[in-house]
Amino acid sequence: MSPQTTIVLLLQGLSLFSLVLASDPDPVQDFCIPNPTPTTIHPCKDAAEATAGDFVFSGMKTPGNFSETGFASIPVNPTTFPGLNTMGMSFVRADFKPGAINPPHFHPRATEIAHVVEGRLYAGFVDSNNKVFARVLEKGEVMVFPRGLMHFQMNVGEVPATIFGSFNSQNPGSQRIPAAVFGSGIDNSLLEKAFGLSSKEIVMMRRKFDPKATVKP
Amino acid sequence: MSPQTTIVLLLQGLSLFSLVLASDPDPVQDFCIPNPTPTTIHPCKDAAEATAGDFVFSGMKTPGNFSETGFASIPVNPTTFPGLNTMGMSFVRADFKPGAINPPHFHPRATEIAHVVEGRLYAGFVDSNNKVFARVLEKGEVMVFPRGLMHFQMNVGEVPATIFGSFNSQNPGSQRIPAAVFGSGIDNSLLEKAFGLSSKEIVMMRRKFDPKATVKP
Amino acid sequence: MSPQTTIVLLLQGLSLFSLVLASDPDPVQDFCIPNPTPTTIHPCKDAAEATAGDFVFSGMKTPGNFSETGFASIPVNPTTFPGLNTMGMSFVRADFKPGAINPPHFHPRATEIAHVVEGRLYAGFVDSNNKVFARVLEKGEVMVFPRGLMHFQMNVGEVPATIFGSFNSQNPGSQRIPAAVFGSGIDNSLLEKAFGLSSKEIVMMRRKFDPKATVKP
Amino acid sequence: MSPQTTIVLLLQGLSLFSLVLASDPDPVQDFCIPNPTPTTIHPCKDAAEATAGDFVFSGMKTPGNFSETGFASIPVNPTTFPGLNTMGMSFVRADFKPGAINPPHFHPRATEIAHVVEGRLYAGFVDSNNKVFARVLEKGEVMVFPRGLMHFQMNVGEVPATIFGSFNSQNPGSQRIPAAVFGSGIDNSLLEKAFGLSSKEIVMMRRKFDPKATVKP
Amino acid sequence: MSPQTTIVLLLQGLSLFSLVLASDPDPVQDFCIPNPTPTTIHPCKDAAEATAGDFVFSGMKTPGNFSETGFASIPVNPTTFPGLNTMGMSFVRADFKPGAINPPHFHPRATEIAHVVEGRLYAGFVDSNNKVFARVLEKGEVMVFPRGLMHFQMNVGEVPATIFGSFNSQNPGSQRIPAAVFGSGIDNSLLEKAFGLSSKEIVMMRRKFDPKATVKP
Amino acid sequence: MSPQTTIVLLLQGLSLFSLVLASDPDPVQDFCIPNPTPTTIHPCKDAAEATAGDFVFSGMKTPGNFSETGFASIPVNPTTFPGLNTMGMSFVRADFKPGAINPPHFHPRATEIAHVVEGRLYAGFVDSNNKVFARVLEKGEVMVFPRGLMHFQMNVGEVPATIFGSFNSQNPGSQRIPAAVFGSGIDNSLLEKAFGLSSKEIVMMRRKFDPKATVKP
Repeated sequence: MSPQTTIVLLLQGLSLFSLVLASDPDPVQDFCIPNPTPTTIHPCKDAAEATAGDFVFSGMKTPGNFSETGFASIPVNPTTFPGLNTMGMSFVRADFKPGAINPPHFHPRATEIAHVVEGRLYAGFVDSNNKVFARVLEKGEVMVFPRGLMHFQMNVGEVPATIFGSFNSQNPGSQRIPAAVFGSGIDNSLLEKAFGLSSKEIVMMRRKFDPKATVKP
Repeated sequence: MSPQTTIVLLLQGLSLFSLVLASDPDPVQDFCIPNPTPTTIHPCKDAAEATAGDFVFSGMKTPGNFSETGFASIPVNPTTFPGLNTMGMSFVRADFKPGAINPPHFHPRATEIAHVVEGRLYAGFVDSNNKVFARVLEKGEVMVFPRGLMHFQMNVGEVPATIFGSFNSQNPGSQRIPAAVFGSGIDNSLLEKAFGLSSKEIVMMRRKFDPKATVKP
Repeated sequence: MSPQTTIVLLLQGLSLFSLVLASDPDPVQDFCIPNPTPTTIHPCKDAAEATAGDFVFSGMKTPGNFSETGFASIPVNPTTFPGLNTMGMSFVRADFKPGAINPPHFHPRATEIAHVVEGRLYAGFVDSNNKVFARVLEKGEVMVFPRGLMHFQMNVGEVPATIFGSFNSQNPGSQRIPAAVFGSGIDNSLLEKAFGLSSKEIVMMRRKFDPKATVKP
Repeated sequence: MSPQTTIVLLLQGLSLFSLVLASDPDPVQDFCIPNPTPTTIHPCKDAAEATAGDFVFSGMKTPGNFSETGFASIPVNPTTFPGLNTMGMSFVRADFKPGAINPPHFHPRATEIAHVVEGRLYAGFVDSNNKVFARVLEKGEVMVFPRGLMHFQMNVGEVPATIFGSFNSQNPGSQRIPAAVFGSGIDNSLLEKAFGLSSKEIVMMRRKFDPKATVKP
Repeated sequence: MSPQTTIVLLLQGLSLFSLVLASDPDPVQDFCIPNPTPTTIHPCKDAAEATAGDFVFSGMKTPGNFSETGFASIPVNPTTFPGLNTMGMSFVRADFKPGAINPPHFHPRATEIAHVVEGRLYAGFVDSNNKVFARVLEKGEVMVFPRGLMHFQMNVGEVPATIFGSFNSQNPGSQRIPAAVFGSGIDNSLLEKAFGLSSKEIVMMRRKFDPKATVKP
Repeated sequence: MSPQTTIVLLLQGLSLFSLVLASDPDPVQDFCIPNPTPTTIHPCKDAAEATAGDFVFSGMKTPGNFSETGFASIPVNPTTFPGLNTMGMSFVRADFKPGAINPPHFHPRATEIAHVVEGRLYAGFVDSNNKVFARVLEKGEVMVFPRGLMHFQMNVGEVPATIFGSFNSQNPGSQRIPAAVFGSGIDNSLLEKAFGLSSKEIVMMRRKFDPKATVKP
């Protein structure tokens, strides 16, 4: 391996570094676009070389790839839009074919502001007392999902629906309940007790969400 | 004044209180909708009485009132949408007739994520080195304006343009440069020196932005 | 209602107020024990009247009330231990009879440090990629559950097990997955799609976790 | 007690409230001067009634009251300068006659920037490894004392010395080591062991710093 | 390029890195002076090698370089005073010849505490409602400029004036309005509309603040 | 030195880096275990390679090394338990033989929750007004020590005592008063004045806590 290669690897590391370690609170510079080029060792791209394009995201003019169930999402954070690094915010585009859902999920590190760009959606969240706050949203309405609370949406209109969601963290994270519970490999007996299901039922649930799992009934 | 009146005033105070003092960092409860009714003394509405509607904003399906110059904005914060209280986020709808502008301004307490819902806009911001980062944005594109930095937009398309902006503060604040500088009552001689303008020119600028001012040339 | 009554109600409100609005970041005084007595209007008890006892919690020397399934927990926050107000921390005692579980749940606003005081437990958490990190913990071991991520425990020993958990928020909140999903009143058709279950199966799940629900199959 | 009186008391409570509960992180309004007048129930003075004078402190043009040992300090926080409320900063003026000291102390909630306005001082702090960083400062020099670390100053010049210190908290707090240790009432035997002193020596130390204490040798 | 060179470059990168990524909230070590020497790869200088001098700034005993208009400032942050790194604070010395001004500007990421060390200054800030809070300050007075709000000073005395300003961010940033608006390259037509000026007038303004600009009238 | 060596050093640097720079507020990823192996340049271990063991600490099942005075402590932070990195929390085990003490000390960057696992201890803290809040704690009781305030413990029972303490910072820091004051090298004359002791007495105190010091009486 040549020294030049060393530097290249190093800088890739530094670029990732700035994504990983920066914390959401008050930034200490105007901006810090992770440096993508190995000709300099600065973690942030030199401000003099930054361009307007570094602060514009053009990759969600159309929906993302739809799942079989008719849901598509384009989560945007510093990995896909480096200009967000240290900004304390990120966003997502979600598209729903009629009847499609975004299953119950939550973002461990952010509040979400969801703006209905198109369509009609049944949307809501659940609070710490297991009370649901759900309603049908029309185009142009905005719903807030408090930090860390489980929420969901379903297109209840006749036409496709689109949501633009924004977050107060550059990387809010996400846990989808069905897959996190049944597709992650939690011990079967714990799940049986937690959901009051038989061993056989748990195995079936796990097959749905984790086909690769070696399930012992 | 009767004791009942006392309580009414008191609770209005408490409602405002929660808007004013809550700080943006991590909340310490699921949500805190300021209590609007004087029949209870709790600052937050009882969670059991909160409804889905408390977390939905329906007041920006259409543009706000247009100014003479063709710009309209609907800033949304806990004053108009109490459900945002303690959420650490707020948002705005801005509409531009062809050629209309949102003049250079900044938000002292937040980053902004601007999503172009309709139209084409020239938009940008200026960094601490007086370098502008500006570009024409198309429908579906998103631009980030870093915390506290001066930014602006202008509809450069043939049709109306609409932006949905979101902020990582429940009350980002806003200072519009022209009015803040020339319409606020700063001493004339300071402005003359700052902008290299004559006393007469400053008086003219102040007339544009502060008709009520008693200007001494 | 007499003026005296007014003051009493008012102060109860203020006491609650300090619990509700204080945010977890840096406090601006040594401490602020919510004032429990209506003879003074200060929100915090006068520091000169505070005692050592205000900062000691004695209510978890023994386990809490066990559920039918053998789990007991005593969550401690400013509501039950006022001295925690503005401290940015809280804690919990959890007890497990052999085989008992703490079902998958998460705390929307805190990391948890879990110290095994007695017994052996299978414990773990799931990350944003649906990967489980689970292991059997012995007495004296400590596991960290990152902020907002789903986690769980099960007593896999022959004797009772006890955990002392602490949080970096004075009110971390908690959402237990089974009850939050099936006991909160989320629309049945959304749950059917989310979990790939039949309408009949969802009705059965809801009966387990929300006996009061008026379930429409 | 009349209803009017009720309101008066109430508002004093609210004024104090805003001092006590506001946390140092990002404010959610331009400013919040605690409302001093009982004619309105708003916790912050109406922004339209605020004046420039509310944001200016004139009480430290001259030194504070000197102690017998020649040290004087004027700590300034929202209690004495309400305009600091929610600003996240506060400050202090300290004056030293030749030879006078500011004994080892620390601020539990802030970093300090100390600007030598007049004179020569020996100043320093101790880090977590018990290493001292101390030096003589000249007029015009600035020293930083990291958050929470013990620091001290002594006038080593021939003339009076003055420091202007500023803090990144509106209420940094302060613990002076000699008085906190020997003047607070900590059990004698613990102090004996901590400092390797005899019971008699501890009693003498306590007399110096806590004349009111009923010391049991 | 030799491997040794690789390390040198690397470490310069790391030193800068610590300046760039550290965020202002609570530090996680006593201090972190960026490591200036390439013989070690630690980002912070080893605490055992740090000296008292690392925490003292001596470069503002006298005024900085005066501009033609009689204003001089020495902004001090971790770039010029590495000991400030992770401290959450920074400071500035500003000097004004009689009549000189510090033009309207704002700091995007900090509140400022301004202490008048010498002279008489007209100083003030503008709030979000375009209301100015301005007054003449005497020697020894202190004014607070809230986070992110536009402010300014002018020496209205007969003698030079000096201000010591401190900030609650290690890098507050600064935008001077005249240069940021007219010297940054914002599209002319937007500025014409924003300030109600003719194309010719805008060109003249741009010439004052951006001589290098290729201005198209 | 070969290029391979370069990479090894580099990565050790990065591992330390993540410990040093991460700030306690909201993390921006699920977790970030500092990468211990030089085969990859990522600062955090790849999440796919992390194991449950990375989040479990097993090193405090038994007491640490006892001092001559019968006190032992095992402070646990990311240096010894890398899984704590970016978690915003850390913890400590403290053991006391009968009569042993933990001398007055404070943590500059965290609140502490102390859980008595075994034994009886006299414990307390001192507030900014030099008032002590101290009491005897029994097994199972919990005491909170507010951020930055001086506190202490002493085993007043007949048997060994054990405390589990947790902190809301990944690196709270610690200053033990006796050693920080008398063992750090603060100028003798300052200490004489601060504690009202003779030159000879200060020399004796310094000998106790700093045997290596070259003390000039």
